[in-house]
Amino acid sequence: MTLTEFKRLPERGTNDPDTVNAILDSALVGHVGFLRAGHPAVIPTLVVRRGDQAYIHGSPASALIRAGKAGAEICLTVTLIDGLVLARSAFHHSANYRSAVVYGQGRWVEGEEKVDVFEALVEKIVPGRLPHLRPLTRKEMAATGVVALGLDQATAKIRTGPPADEEADYDLAIWAGVVPIETVFADPVPDPRNQPGLSVPDHVGRLEP
Amino acid sequence: MTLTEFKRLPERGTNDPDTVNAILDSALVGHVGFLRAGHPAVIPTLVVRRGDQAYIHGSPASALIRAGKAGAEICLTVTLIDGLVLARSAFHHSANYRSAVVYGQGRWVEGEEKVDVFEALVEKIVPGRLPHLRPLTRKEMAATGVVALGLDQATAKIRTGPPADEEADYDLAIWAGVVPIETVFADPVPDPRNQPGLSVPDHVGRLEP
Repeated sequence: MTLTEFKRLPERGTNDPDTVNAILDSALVGHVGFLRAGHPAVIPTLVVRRGDQAYIHGSPASALIRAGKAGAEICLTVTLIDGLVLARSAFHHSANYRSAVVYGQGRWVEGEEKVDVFEALVEKIVPGRLPHLRPLTRKEMAATGVVALGLDQATAKIRTGPPADEEADYDLAIWAGVVPIETVFADPVPDPRNQPGLSVPDHVGRLEP
Repeated sequence: MTLTEFKRLPERGTNDPDTVNAILDSALVGHVGFLRAGHPAVIPTLVVRRGDQAYIHGSPASALIRAGKAGAEICLTVTLIDGLVLARSAFHHSANYRSAVVYGQGRWVEGEEKVDVFEALVEKIVPGRLPHLRPLTRKEMAATGVVALGLDQATAKIRTGPPADEEADYDLAIWAGVVPIETVFADPVPDPRNQPGLSVPDHVGRLEP
């Protein structure tokens, strides 16, 4: 009933970079923990990975980005929920999930790497959209802070499969199983201020989560 | 392009308890920040609310639950992503979302309140399932730690609606809009070890996220 511990067979932890990378690449949003005036704070933010670096961004005036710029310790956690695990006892109810936790110190990003991060982020969220956009301006670049986090201290945890009930409980006539959870995109909603005659472009129509 | 700042019209922050409560009640999982041996850590965990208290649980041996038991400062953040906001510039790309951030100190929960929390959690995840389950044992109760967090220091942020582009960019022939994101349940997958002849019960068949 908890997501926080290593359990028996169905749950496993790993430091395998490919596993960590796949989870980071599948998640749109991560939760970043840091110290804000000495108090633990957790902020949701878009996340993108390039190689062995994860990147977050935001206003240079925000507490999170300022902490990252100062090289403060941060913890980035991403979680994908794949299903409800319905056991025969309340105790063994759980969730199937994939999560990655990255510990490290922020590194301030500038120049070419910063441009690459913006492009990678747009490409991650909506592949193929970037060439259609009005290019970034210097002012916009300056108005956004980018912080990198190395992936050398990263772990992943994955739970899959059916419930893990007490052996005696398998004799009970209680339906148990998994209810898969999926994230889907609904039909695009055009901006009311779109120019007349614009139809939904291919790169939007073919989006998949 | 960030989830971390208050922006113009489409984004708003509030301390309204009804708004905070609705977000906590809609989210299955929260991310809890705390200090683990002096370092910021963020752990995903199921979350349930009763009145003006949010509850998390886990193994009493886990770092998070031990911190909560000790009355440490924690920060609980829940985030629901409602859509991709596709603007005319990379800079104004964003996400529609609802998030709640709760700051406070953990409070160790025992006795009747602990039983109520377990029941509320099962009822939240799968309404109507509780009466069908093998009852909790004393051993299971003891093997689970529950930590409460008061909601008096809670804020919510919500972004809705179309992109907020630069005024001049609205003249560009670039399709902009929102791609709604929805969470859905797929068909239940029975545990291979279910007793023969058990069909999917109503309380599972009618589940909605």
